[in-house]
Amino acid sequence: MQAVGMVVEYNPFHNGHRYFLRQARQLTDADVTVAVMSGNFTQRGEPTIVDKWTRARAALESGVDLVVELPIFYAAQPAHRFAAGALAILNALQVHQVAFGAEHPDWDFPALVAAERRFNQAEFDQYNVTYATQFNQQLRAQTGRELRDPNDILAFAYTKAVLTRHYPIQLTAVQRRGSDYHDREIHGQIASASAIRQAVATGTDFIATVPTAMRAALAQVDRVPDWADLYPILRNQLIQAPLNYLATTYQMAEGLEHRMKEVAQRSLTFDAFIHGVKTKRYTYAHLLRMCLYTTLQLSEDEVVARTDQPYIHILGFTRRGQEYLHQVKKAVPVPLFTKVSQGMRDGFYNLDYRAGKLYQNFTPVEQDLKHPPIMIR
Amino acid sequence: MQAVGMVVEYNPFHNGHRYFLRQARQLTDADVTVAVMSGNFTQRGEPTIVDKWTRARAALESGVDLVVELPIFYAAQPAHRFAAGALAILNALQVHQVAFGAEHPDWDFPALVAAERRFNQAEFDQYNVTYATQFNQQLRAQTGRELRDPNDILAFAYTKAVLTRHYPIQLTAVQRRGSDYHDREIHGQIASASAIRQAVATGTDFIATVPTAMRAALAQVDRVPDWADLYPILRNQLIQAPLNYLATTYQMAEGLEHRMKEVAQRSLTFDAFIHGVKTKRYTYAHLLRMCLYTTLQLSEDEVVARTDQPYIHILGFTRRGQEYLHQVKKAVPVPLFTKVSQGMRDGFYNLDYRAGKLYQNFTPVEQDLKHPPIMIR
Repeated sequence: MQAVGMVVEYNPFHNGHRYFLRQARQLTDADVTVAVMSGNFTQRGEPTIVDKWTRARAALESGVDLVVELPIFYAAQPAHRFAAGALAILNALQVHQVAFGAEHPDWDFPALVAAERRFNQAEFDQYNVTYATQFNQQLRAQTGRELRDPNDILAFAYTKAVLTRHYPIQLTAVQRRGSDYHDREIHGQIASASAIRQAVATGTDFIATVPTAMRAALAQVDRVPDWADLYPILRNQLIQAPLNYLATTYQMAEGLEHRMKEVAQRSLTFDAFIHGVKTKRYTYAHLLRMCLYTTLQLSEDEVVARTDQPYIHILGFTRRGQEYLHQVKKAVPVPLFTKVSQGMRDGFYNLDYRAGKLYQNFTPVEQDLKHPPIMIR
Repeated sequence: MQAVGMVVEYNPFHNGHRYFLRQARQLTDADVTVAVMSGNFTQRGEPTIVDKWTRARAALESGVDLVVELPIFYAAQPAHRFAAGALAILNALQVHQVAFGAEHPDWDFPALVAAERRFNQAEFDQYNVTYATQFNQQLRAQTGRELRDPNDILAFAYTKAVLTRHYPIQLTAVQRRGSDYHDREIHGQIASASAIRQAVATGTDFIATVPTAMRAALAQVDRVPDWADLYPILRNQLIQAPLNYLATTYQMAEGLEHRMKEVAQRSLTFDAFIHGVKTKRYTYAHLLRMCLYTTLQLSEDEVVARTDQPYIHILGFTRRGQEYLHQVKKAVPVPLFTKVSQGMRDGFYNLDYRAGKLYQNFTPVEQDLKHPPIMIR
């Protein structure tokens, strides 16, 4: 059996994902589809619209054969770490084909990766612009191109991960319209995930845009989870924790802990907080991730330890997905499991467990401990 | 001018407090009344029904001349530390008379204090009973009495503080009915604070039991603040913070951090949590205070540092209270202030400031920074 892997958030799972799934299978001639999916928090550090089990079930009922969790120390990261982590998981699962969407699938991404090696690191010294802006200044100077669209940025990151780690993985880029991601309107049966979340949030009709498997779950969402809901927790942490403790937070740099504490003290709402913290130096995505790291009390040491020793948490599978697992499991070089035991909770799985507990502010469902995998027959 | 001091919570200020105020003034023949009042959290570690400013204003409009804040490192403490802290503040304010209620005002409290010095410390070794129970076993053996009623316990603690610190303070005990405190029913114009809070919580009529000054504020309470509201914050702290960090929490002992973390992980409600944590060893009051210390990330070091260097935050005064302040201020040996500056916020006042920020989960009102004192003309 040959598998095609995909790196996904399914936030929520929608018709566009189903369409992509068919394309990926056709283009790669794969027998089985494997999705490595973010858990309860997205790459931007935000809580997902419904929990990972609901999203995994919708995916499995819509044609995905195997869904595994992208651990949070990979999932809530900038594109290059997100992509590297996801490909590490797919490679460990013996997946040799990976399909992804890109706004410019025809670009020579390996050439762009090669160009990055010639960057002058000394030029990354402008403290009033984002890293992405400085990256694009150099990329344009070298290649005439800039990475501006979100899927192109991930395409670059997947390519870089494969080339750097020498994974035996063939990458297949699929055309994705550049407007999709940012499009906030719903027209017909295909809409972007953000447009669908917006429709759920505002009570607009979204039914045509998601497969049956996702409809009931989304219909039950009366409030789309977001940071405003978690702000009392984040705010308390920023106010109560000493500065030297906040400074140990993963990615906390350049004195950002001072700014976050100061702004939290005077901001009663998350909106006021995030606008108060924003500078030209940091993107909103970076700051949202910093909110997540702070709330999870995630330290640099913890991320380093976990990144070096990943694992694969299987969320669910079809019969075909199960067969694939039987075929590959002996070759998988990292812990592979379907149920989180108490020992795993207190050990290597602890960070994902804690993220699940944070997500319990949106659902009473226990997210991890002894949760059985989804099996679709 | 001679002052009479009182140690109060005014949670809320009610007719019984007004009655006591008159008795205290008559019995001591004082010109001015000074109340040292808990801020936004009570001795039991619970949030107050309305904020400290609202309670101070009601007291000032009902006959108290000067209201100062009992700093939280004194206020949210067992009786002996609460009483010692409050008397340290009153003594610093040059108050030489202190009146308090007691269920048994005729008891010889100095004799009971003397008896405690003869206790056998080695007998405080039963880990399945509370400290209070062991204390009473020894007190009964020495004197035939037990301290069972809350105001008698405080009376003992005030007496002990005066005798130990040699304060030039005369104590006046006023009869208080033993049933008052625990009485949950409202009959007529005098009711216990807990009965009034209960009435506010259940929408029962409480109007006759509180002076006009308190009525409007209580009428606006649509939910009585309690730990259930703060549980998402407490729970996240217990789950996300490493055990070795939780272990540095003030009064965290005998491995309680393990138990609190474990129970928090599985408890979705505060009710389930506090019942899960309860053992014969600890009272609910102790555990509620531990919840507060944990949420404030209060360390042993911080409490020791603050306890040794108290200060007096003036919440408000009448004209007579202001005159008294003018009369004594040069003799006050600790910082005395009416407004919290940014420097104080980040310095010695920080812990009270943080408690005020935690209380902002119940009110948008800034509790400390640059808040002016209440002046009643």
